[in-house]
Amino acid sequence: MRIVVVGGVAAGTKAASRAKRVAPDSEVVIYQSEPDISISECGMPYFLSGIIEGRERLVARTPEKFRENGIEVKVRHGVEKVDADAKKLVIRNLESDATFEDSYDRLIIATGAKAVVPPIPGSGLDGVFKLRFLTDADAIERYIGEKEPKNAVVVGGGYIGLEMAEALTERGMGVSLIEAGKEIAPTHGPEVARIVNAHLEEKGVRIYEGNPVEGMEMACEGGDDGCVHVVEFGEARIEASLVIVAIGVKPEVELAKEAGVELGETGAIKTDKFMRTNLADVWAAGDCAETTNYITGEAAWVPLGDTANQMGRVAGTNAAKGENGLAFPGVLGTGIFKAFDLGVGKTGLSEAEANEAGYETLCASVEARNRAGYFPGSAEVFLKMISDKNSGRILGVEAVGASVDKLVDVSATAIWGGLTVGEVVNLDLAYAPPFGPTLSPVIQAATVLSGKSLRSG
Amino acid sequence: MRIVVVGGVAAGTKAASRAKRVAPDSEVVIYQSEPDISISECGMPYFLSGIIEGRERLVARTPEKFRENGIEVKVRHGVEKVDADAKKLVIRNLESDATFEDSYDRLIIATGAKAVVPPIPGSGLDGVFKLRFLTDADAIERYIGEKEPKNAVVVGGGYIGLEMAEALTERGMGVSLIEAGKEIAPTHGPEVARIVNAHLEEKGVRIYEGNPVEGMEMACEGGDDGCVHVVEFGEARIEASLVIVAIGVKPEVELAKEAGVELGETGAIKTDKFMRTNLADVWAAGDCAETTNYITGEAAWVPLGDTANQMGRVAGTNAAKGENGLAFPGVLGTGIFKAFDLGVGKTGLSEAEANEAGYETLCASVEARNRAGYFPGSAEVFLKMISDKNSGRILGVEAVGASVDKLVDVSATAIWGGLTVGEVVNLDLAYAPPFGPTLSPVIQAATVLSGKSLRSG
Repeated sequence: MRIVVVGGVAAGTKAASRAKRVAPDSEVVIYQSEPDISISECGMPYFLSGIIEGRERLVARTPEKFRENGIEVKVRHGVEKVDADAKKLVIRNLESDATFEDSYDRLIIATGAKAVVPPIPGSGLDGVFKLRFLTDADAIERYIGEKEPKNAVVVGGGYIGLEMAEALTERGMGVSLIEAGKEIAPTHGPEVARIVNAHLEEKGVRIYEGNPVEGMEMACEGGDDGCVHVVEFGEARIEASLVIVAIGVKPEVELAKEAGVELGETGAIKTDKFMRTNLADVWAAGDCAETTNYITGEAAWVPLGDTANQMGRVAGTNAAKGENGLAFPGVLGTGIFKAFDLGVGKTGLSEAEANEAGYETLCASVEARNRAGYFPGSAEVFLKMISDKNSGRILGVEAVGASVDKLVDVSATAIWGGLTVGEVVNLDLAYAPPFGPTLSPVIQAATVLSGKSLRSG
Repeated sequence: MRIVVVGGVAAGTKAASRAKRVAPDSEVVIYQSEPDISISECGMPYFLSGIIEGRERLVARTPEKFRENGIEVKVRHGVEKVDADAKKLVIRNLESDATFEDSYDRLIIATGAKAVVPPIPGSGLDGVFKLRFLTDADAIERYIGEKEPKNAVVVGGGYIGLEMAEALTERGMGVSLIEAGKEIAPTHGPEVARIVNAHLEEKGVRIYEGNPVEGMEMACEGGDDGCVHVVEFGEARIEASLVIVAIGVKPEVELAKEAGVELGETGAIKTDKFMRTNLADVWAAGDCAETTNYITGEAAWVPLGDTANQMGRVAGTNAAKGENGLAFPGVLGTGIFKAFDLGVGKTGLSEAEANEAGYETLCASVEARNRAGYFPGSAEVFLKMISDKNSGRILGVEAVGASVDKLVDVSATAIWGGLTVGEVVNLDLAYAPPFGPTLSPVIQAATVLSGKSLRSG
């Protein structure tokens, strides 16, 4: 049996490894168009900030390692066509530019996501970069080494934009961040966005909200290090020697679509809970695949590395077995990013998302510390919890500050277990002064909400 | 209505505050025999290590603060007798030594726990201390200031003993720790105990396991700073200028017992889930009270500050309402302590405890990192998960290393929600390189156990 995996980052490599483990006698091959495989793409901003030395540290496993485990890896090989009836593929060797055919018994599509390139003048200029693949990071690193830019503009205030604003500040650049929407960190509620905004400005990042970039051009008059980029938006123009465009990603589904794979309402590949597509013997996993929101049951597309890994495990297992062995239960959209000294995390639905999904919500915000107040190094934490007024169930939590990864993970687990705010009030968590306040901010918020429910109920 | 609370640390102050809030027109009074109230007793080792400056920082709220909220606080007042039929109390003013009577409509017993004093010769010597109350910490601090001891013996390898071994090492003393049992950290499994043991020895603590202390005596021949304590155990004798005895605590139940309050099988005050005792209008909460193990349903006594606080909230609310408004669901026995650079945490049942409780168990141990492996400062984590082979439910987790408070709290929440290992495999937690590996060690362990269940099932 031949199992072909298209794509070799989080979902693809995990799916391939699982498939080989579940069906050791099968042939497993990964086609990957980029020159690297098994990349920690989430680590790229930290490679660019300089705190991770050496791009090779971002490569979890080399093609050789996969080969040792019996998995064939073909990098710089782009799959150009899938014939699902004949179970055949057309592949281009991107080094030699030659094409050839392969066939599969089972196919796993893990083509990932691609950066959204804005349709604005100048986005193709030299010195204007996206950050999607390790080759992008290489190009940015090379450019910084050559040009030694003193100023940078980051376009987009989502988590990659914010991580890059930190990274370039750490590299000594003056950074301006332009967010088209009303606020940065747009998947979060306004309370969190404001805290992040204030912290970034404190660290020297200039933030411009509410206007999209309208154009970028080179200006070459004067200036001793040659030309600069001029970024135009709203009423303003900012000059910079480096521009990072990070306005989002979208699922890479062209290959799948042309092969007759059905897409879902999010634009990603529609899958059932076994990660099967509409085509026989074709599974999908990772950033190219749609799943469901665990809370609402609605279609969800959440392109994140840990989710991709989990999906890959399910798809790889089921593809190898040829049956519905494992099920993927959906996602909460749990995520976190670092913005200088802050962690910024979220799980489940924001207040706006919950209201939009039709819930009657109750919200509680608490300001607390990440350790006992008297313990050295204790720092501020803000946490907002959203619950369903009728059932008492926790729908979402946002947190910003120090050690919020713990609070977000506890909240995600509580939602996963269907816990109500009343049940969380007496949740038995671990306390000692170096690790938190006597009662976790999660418990504090649940206690407030529990009181609100009692009063309103 | 007059609500009297006996005891003013975590449970007592919380119960009083809640009672006043729920029934603002009631009189609420706290009698506390120690001179301080609302103490963070868990912070005492850090006061003694010197990293928390000033004992007053351990006082969360002063009697004046309580008075501002309408709660009367009588420190240095010991309640000597409860007449539950007449609803009367006899109280001794420990300053004047005079006694007087008071009466109550509702009584909350929050008398806490007391240190176990071993029946061994010499335990009453000057320079031999327990650490139970802030007054004990004061006495130790004064003694260290006066005598400047260079060597110390800590008797007992539970969490207070281990925290004190760290604290005294930080103060520059050479520390020997004597544990009567087979291993230190006895509530943990042997894997964790061994990691903690090795780490302490690396930090210079000498550990002696397997023999109880048989006696302590003063030896005054020679030595330029006068007499030393000689601690005898097994075949050995250790000399030291300071001895801390931390062999455990037991519930302070004398007052309750004499009043006719029924004790449970653990020796603590028996309560129902509303924190009621067997006597009408008498509740109990905190370290003096017994509850149930959330997993097994068996009687449990877990004297910890956060649990006391949660129990106090339930008892205070119900006492104020005079009805069963809130229920306390029991405990997992979740706990954590710091031992130099390690966190040492546990929730639920250890493997031995689970087997003893009659479960057929599966166990998985994982060694992981607390951040992405390539991220600077990433450190080792050991996690062991115990599951019920039949239901797949998680029964307990132990973890030691960096950032294990998060892993323990996630595990506690998963147990609280009744999650199976299979359900935890795809749990959607927060990932970014600064905060953890792609998949949490909790998910890694659940994945191993899920595989074991499939194979054995």
